[in-house]
Amino acid sequence: MTASQSEPVLHELDRGVALFTLHRPERLNAWSSAIERRYFDLLEDAASDPAVRAIVLTGAGRGFCAGADMDDLGEIARSGGLPPGEHRPQSLPLGIPKPIIAAINGACAGIGLVQALMCDVRFAAAGAKLTTAFARRGLVAEHGISWILPRLVGPSRALDLLLSGRVVLAEEALAMGLVDRVVPGERLLAEALAYARELATHCSPTSMAAMKLQVYRHLDAGFERAVAESNELMAESLRGPDFPEGVASFVERRVPNFPPLGEPPSLGPPGGA
Amino acid sequence: MTASQSEPVLHELDRGVALFTLHRPERLNAWSSAIERRYFDLLEDAASDPAVRAIVLTGAGRGFCAGADMDDLGEIARSGGLPPGEHRPQSLPLGIPKPIIAAINGACAGIGLVQALMCDVRFAAAGAKLTTAFARRGLVAEHGISWILPRLVGPSRALDLLLSGRVVLAEEALAMGLVDRVVPGERLLAEALAYARELATHCSPTSMAAMKLQVYRHLDAGFERAVAESNELMAESLRGPDFPEGVASFVERRVPNFPPLGEPPSLGPPGGA
Amino acid sequence: MTASQSEPVLHELDRGVALFTLHRPERLNAWSSAIERRYFDLLEDAASDPAVRAIVLTGAGRGFCAGADMDDLGEIARSGGLPPGEHRPQSLPLGIPKPIIAAINGACAGIGLVQALMCDVRFAAAGAKLTTAFARRGLVAEHGISWILPRLVGPSRALDLLLSGRVVLAEEALAMGLVDRVVPGERLLAEALAYARELATHCSPTSMAAMKLQVYRHLDAGFERAVAESNELMAESLRGPDFPEGVASFVERRVPNFPPLGEPPSLGPPGGA
Repeated sequence: MTASQSEPVLHELDRGVALFTLHRPERLNAWSSAIERRYFDLLEDAASDPAVRAIVLTGAGRGFCAGADMDDLGEIARSGGLPPGEHRPQSLPLGIPKPIIAAINGACAGIGLVQALMCDVRFAAAGAKLTTAFARRGLVAEHGISWILPRLVGPSRALDLLLSGRVVLAEEALAMGLVDRVVPGERLLAEALAYARELATHCSPTSMAAMKLQVYRHLDAGFERAVAESNELMAESLRGPDFPEGVASFVERRVPNFPPLGEPPSLGPPGGA
Repeated sequence: MTASQSEPVLHELDRGVALFTLHRPERLNAWSSAIERRYFDLLEDAASDPAVRAIVLTGAGRGFCAGADMDDLGEIARSGGLPPGEHRPQSLPLGIPKPIIAAINGACAGIGLVQALMCDVRFAAAGAKLTTAFARRGLVAEHGISWILPRLVGPSRALDLLLSGRVVLAEEALAMGLVDRVVPGERLLAEALAYARELATHCSPTSMAAMKLQVYRHLDAGFERAVAESNELMAESLRGPDFPEGVASFVERRVPNFPPLGEPPSLGPPGGA
Repeated sequence: MTASQSEPVLHELDRGVALFTLHRPERLNAWSSAIERRYFDLLEDAASDPAVRAIVLTGAGRGFCAGADMDDLGEIARSGGLPPGEHRPQSLPLGIPKPIIAAINGACAGIGLVQALMCDVRFAAAGAKLTTAFARRGLVAEHGISWILPRLVGPSRALDLLLSGRVVLAEEALAMGLVDRVVPGERLLAEALAYARELATHCSPTSMAAMKLQVYRHLDAGFERAVAESNELMAESLRGPDFPEGVASFVERRVPNFPPLGEPPSLGPPGGA
């Protein structure tokens, strides 16, 4: 543990996997500008830290993140203004060139759900409650959830979740595609960390960075552009050190020894709408 | 019941929920220009009626809508012409700024399936039969189903359904994401109405209108544009009356008192392809 | 059987259904330029052969296609170059105006999975192993899989499969939407062929060609353009011979007698990004 217990987000690093824990357990880790600033700082640090190959995000105590801090919300409602301060977009995690795994340990609502959806893969504790909540507070589909949610679960399930603001349990969330795995709560963090460790151990950091870039970018790209960009990245990968090591380790039936991520793969400006 | 039993679509209104019933039970509610004109008129009226907060669409008798009227189809086939008269697009329901719930009580085929897919959420009776049917009649993927179906169930399941024109039962339709809920037939309408009532009672009409606009529009938008537009709508919502009422009712643990939908939220011309 | 047993891809034709069998069983049908050239040639021949109405692709022996030939890969890794020769894109099957059904009889990895995903519908043998594999070889998401996979299973499941390169069994693949049917291995080919025969017997070749064009093209099209193009194809279908035959055979409760595919339906240049 490299952070004091009064930090809004705890962080630790073990064998390539960074664990970030939202840490305001007495408020179910309600989202505040302090939490956001710290979480985004940690993500940006992890992006450039060669020791980090995969990231797990979870919440301290009973909840994952129960939504925006109600004191903040009340203040915003009274003043009619936008939240001050933080100007990095909520989509920042999509641009981090390393896998981010959400371990949803409990209540996950509103902007807490947005944070979970901005992770690449979601593990949830059995019985965990998830909800968009926005329509019940007089709010809209915030921070890009109207873009990511229909792509994850289709527009009909997205509208069901958004229009109703109803609570779904982890099991229904799995059937819908809202989360990717459901495990008993007491094993949640261990399983999410084990999955992240598998990525850190067996998968090329450069490959993973390219793939994350490709998947999110190609959601907005036509097929022709997607293939052209993929061919560009493929040609680079065939010249790089990871491909011979990947083939050799496979043939020799051993764990590969991939170098850390250097300069992340990049492409020109996206051509999507 | 505010319509005579000879109307092609029956309609009633109860505590914020409009129920529209396709009413040609002796033909399994086969789609005709009379049914279409009346249904679209009712939708447009509901859009501007402050007493309507959610809409349920179902069919009278054993079927939901078994497809285009075969007499009409035969006439079209003989003359090689397009159906006369109605010129509003089949996608009209997507632009109605209120939730539309399909209660699929039985056979749902061809243009009847298109109508069901243009609703926002689908409840189906156990055992109800659904089929695209088009390929077995020498027709193509009509009226935008080639756009909406792959977004609901993915391109492979969409092709399975379109290429084969096979019948799927409600249970398989649920597993595919073609419908959102399956309930025993005798409870179908009650459950669809209860869901619609929940929307009418607990969810802000302005929020729901914004969300429906966002979800369909952002299926064709790149991420950047989706977030920019969402931020615009979010800023409006933070200045409106529903947000303080949503927060207050949540804190006070009471049913919110949201005003009816006034001017629906709007955005500039879409930027999608 | 019209090909010698030393052919890289075997082919046969029975009552409208062409069966292509990848045929390098001693290497789990590892993808080579010889296999690719022959498979793509066969597809192009089938596209213009009026006797072919549907296509099934499977693998000889225990595997479907276990990925790129390791000798080829090793050579590429050593030389840092791209594979020589074949220049038709891996997406060629998407443009073949006839249904292609994959019968995944066993191991399906890397470029083998890409081939399966370029088919329109996927049947898999119970217990068959599927994996992207790329990240474990230091490679990226190749040949358009970063475009098609997220559209089939959503971006989160796509990232799970791509980032981890883990093996999923057919049963999990079905739950994810990666395959469409799972059947016991000993019945796999019979069921895939029966499905293809159903298409060949009951469905209009012209309808199927239009639908395949519509579905893939409209994944990249905005709603307005998709409807406009569909209306164009619909008007053609209403003037063609298949629609009256489709209606007549339905009314007369008999098998339709649709003509073979002539000139495939076409549309102007796509408007997608």
